[in-house]
Amino acid sequence: MRSFAIVLLLALTAEQAPAAKPKTPTEIVAAAPASAWKTIPAEDLLVMQLANGARVIIQLAPQFAPVHVANIRALSRASWWDKAAIYRVQDNYVVQWGKNESEDPLPPGVVATPPAEYHRKLRGLKVHPLGYPDAYAPRAGYALGWPVAYDPKRGTANLAHCYSYVGVGRSLSPDTGTGGELYAVIGHSPRHLDRNIAVVGRVVSGIESLSSLPRGTEALGFYKERSQDVPIAWVRLASAFPAAERPSFQYLDTNSASFAAYVRARANRKDDFFIRPAGGVDLCNAPVPVRPTPAG
Amino acid sequence: MRSFAIVLLLALTAEQAPAAKPKTPTEIVAAAPASAWKTIPAEDLLVMQLANGARVIIQLAPQFAPVHVANIRALSRASWWDKAAIYRVQDNYVVQWGKNESEDPLPPGVVATPPAEYHRKLRGLKVHPLGYPDAYAPRAGYALGWPVAYDPKRGTANLAHCYSYVGVGRSLSPDTGTGGELYAVIGHSPRHLDRNIAVVGRVVSGIESLSSLPRGTEALGFYKERSQDVPIAWVRLASAFPAAERPSFQYLDTNSASFAAYVRARANRKDDFFIRPAGGVDLCNAPVPVRPTPAG
Repeated sequence: MRSFAIVLLLALTAEQAPAAKPKTPTEIVAAAPASAWKTIPAEDLLVMQLANGARVIIQLAPQFAPVHVANIRALSRASWWDKAAIYRVQDNYVVQWGKNESEDPLPPGVVATPPAEYHRKLRGLKVHPLGYPDAYAPRAGYALGWPVAYDPKRGTANLAHCYSYVGVGRSLSPDTGTGGELYAVIGHSPRHLDRNIAVVGRVVSGIESLSSLPRGTEALGFYKERSQDVPIAWVRLASAFPAAERPSFQYLDTNSASFAAYVRARANRKDDFFIRPAGGVDLCNAPVPVRPTPAG
Repeated sequence: MRSFAIVLLLALTAEQAPAAKPKTPTEIVAAAPASAWKTIPAEDLLVMQLANGARVIIQLAPQFAPVHVANIRALSRASWWDKAAIYRVQDNYVVQWGKNESEDPLPPGVVATPPAEYHRKLRGLKVHPLGYPDAYAPRAGYALGWPVAYDPKRGTANLAHCYSYVGVGRSLSPDTGTGGELYAVIGHSPRHLDRNIAVVGRVVSGIESLSSLPRGTEALGFYKERSQDVPIAWVRLASAFPAAERPSFQYLDTNSASFAAYVRARANRKDDFFIRPAGGVDLCNAPVPVRPTPAG
């Protein structure tokens, strides 16, 4: 079937020089200069090792939820999640893990009821606007390497609940969750949770180990039997690893020219496959590019 | 932790009578009268039985892609997919099945290159507007039980690539795909595919059997070895089943008062858990409710 397209292209070439082929989003990211990449601090990378051998790596967002992130660091240092488990997998929604409301005392230094870090001040953020409408907020864009929805009138900005993003399980308000129970989004971005829950980061590696888990059959996707739980071996910050084994990742600076070009290309796909570029993109459909830090 | 919320509620009750508790989206759907539900014709339900025992049921959309849907019906009647397989599972994107570009001759009655049924005329559709902005089209809403993006100026409407929606794999244009290779969305809705591919329906039962499959490790999520393929036992229209065994489903009439109330509630969640209703919702985050046809 591909022959059709080749014939068409040759015909074009014969009659008129076609414009230079526009770069795909992937090509733009691959061509970004080293200066456009920012290395994630080792204190902001949380490594979750599952007992089945899979590894999930989460970038934390202290810029948006500092107290929750401090809790998560303290919980990992106290080995809080060692032998915890994934106990909830709800299709098109979330995978959730922790101790499932057991009454273990919190380790020292963990705040039992952090402030409601559901949004932050817009002031101080240099936002790269998405440039297309958002159904959930007056504006959407990117700041400090994160997708944000914001309201210039209120002066607030919040991390968006996009695919692979990690939030803090909580009970009814005023509980805000300690960070001991976490979830990752594995379906269409549930943006209605924005500004109602603390978003603390995103999975930068291994999301497929969570998204492909069997779905729970109880209400809200909880597993019916404890024997179905997926055991966690341990959770550690990258900073706790010996230097030689420490995982390292980079994200594309959301204020770089490469990132701007990437978002434009995501909104106007002109790869061979596309006939009609959308002329728009939603915030969660132009995810911030992340890569393992290149060697050397 | 729930005790906090109960204390708060009691305090409110003592001082002032709280407004009647608003219904949740689920409660609104549960309370919809029988007249608001439409039964899906048996010719529009495609049953895919996997060899592992899982069953996936797809509602076809002849109102949007009549030639592709006619092809799919003809392919199922010719047992085209018996012993075909799922061969591609790309995380946060699609699960794809068929014969993976083998050169089997098409059964009689199957159109090799259907028209590009990527959108249809807006005229004749009674659209219930979503009422919130869409990043991909001038307007979004629902018609004939389906989520649609539309352009009043151009006079066109298209089915949206939402979670669980099914599209037709194709090669480069002008190929439009026969319908022999199909995919279902298992991640954040890839709306950039809208108007570039024929959307032919949605999974109404069993999407979790697709979304939880192991991800393929090759480019675009293709399985590396044919031994990893997930075999399909057979695919049949519900109309081919004996009456007593025939699956039957209903969708909520998108022009009903119940549906309008459901979308409003999805956009303004006021369940106990929510602190700040979004005041908006995106098209794919207010999916058309579907249920098994009640007995009797």
